[in-house]
Amino acid sequence: MRIGELAERTGVPAATIKFYLRERLLPPGVHGENNIVDYGPVHVHRLMLIRALSETAGLSVSQIGGVLTVLSRHPDSAFRAMGATLAVTHREPKFSLASEESVERAERTVERLLAAYDWAEVTPPMYREALVTALAAYFRLGHPDLGDVLTHWADAAAQLASADIESIVEATRDGDVDVEQAVVTTLLGETVIGTLRRIAHIAAAARFQAGEGSSGTMGA
Amino acid sequence: MRIGELAERTGVPAATIKFYLRERLLPPGVHGENNIVDYGPVHVHRLMLIRALSETAGLSVSQIGGVLTVLSRHPDSAFRAMGATLAVTHREPKFSLASEESVERAERTVERLLAAYDWAEVTPPMYREALVTALAAYFRLGHPDLGDVLTHWADAAAQLASADIESIVEATRDGDVDVEQAVVTTLLGETVIGTLRRIAHIAAAARFQAGEGSSGTMGA
Repeated sequence: MRIGELAERTGVPAATIKFYLRERLLPPGVHGENNIVDYGPVHVHRLMLIRALSETAGLSVSQIGGVLTVLSRHPDSAFRAMGATLAVTHREPKFSLASEESVERAERTVERLLAAYDWAEVTPPMYREALVTALAAYFRLGHPDLGDVLTHWADAAAQLASADIESIVEATRDGDVDVEQAVVTTLLGETVIGTLRRIAHIAAAARFQAGEGSSGTMGA
Repeated sequence: MRIGELAERTGVPAATIKFYLRERLLPPGVHGENNIVDYGPVHVHRLMLIRALSETAGLSVSQIGGVLTVLSRHPDSAFRAMGATLAVTHREPKFSLASEESVERAERTVERLLAAYDWAEVTPPMYREALVTALAAYFRLGHPDLGDVLTHWADAAAQLASADIESIVEATRDGDVDVEQAVVTTLLGETVIGTLRRIAHIAAAARFQAGEGSSGTMGA
């Protein structure tokens, strides 16, 4: 089909399709007779994927480019594709006002946490630095130790990672390893989990406050 | 102190401080003699908070404005401040290419999930719509049901919410309710949890692949 029909069928404006072509997010069409460029089902699907990654998962154009590169490089390994996807969509936190003391304290806290979860050896420097930066900002603001909260977060993170891995293992067992599916699940997962956290928070606060109230019958 | 000293002491350029003043993220200084404007410790702390929210937590200027409004409106209730903070920093996902079928299927999935966790009654429409949008994109791409993954995500979200609530309850018990601390913990939490998920993923994948390998001794 021509670019006009591709636009009509997908609902993505032709100008936007041309932008994706220029940014190489969309593979070029096939040049046919009379200089007509032909697009097919691959382009329809790719457009839906690009829109899901940008509008729904909130990724930037360069992050989407990174994810598409991951998909082309790891067509057979959902494990590697998922890990590489998490790496290219990692946002590097900064904190320019950190003090030496807050950084040192953050480093000690991160070392203890990674050791406790047996994660010290496998953690890449960029993730370790991200944790140190975030905790240094927290300490610099004069807040005390995070205490148990950090352990709860690490437990939840371990649970999320197990879910990722299990979903791949299950799909593999069914002989149906779909690398794109694994990657999309991981990325939309960040949006879904963030929203579920907000809902669970409202529910937990309501339950706690009811339990603290006069009747206490809703505290169970 | 004058604006120049405030810039020197915090490390935030004077031009940036002026931008924060114009955007009303920073309260104005006190006008004194000779038209000199005086800034104090409140401004030093506020600048650190703004930088932690922008650089470290990755919030936009308008989101930071929303968080600061929350802090001024709920000076005594860490519960309300935390919930309001999660609301103003919620990113609304979109998906313009959804089909009627994918939306209906997403709606059914979301209803079932919210009912199973007893969250249906307390969930605000914006969070419900966010979940439907994210799942509609997933289904539209031709992917099958998420199955157990969704339950794992909800469990992890419930765990994160409990950690939020517990940290407030503990601080309240110690007679030390710090609303700003609760809010900062929640916001930096999103960065820390996202990073911990990436680390846990690498660890879980390594463990699984070692278990699948020849020796199997590392699979425990």
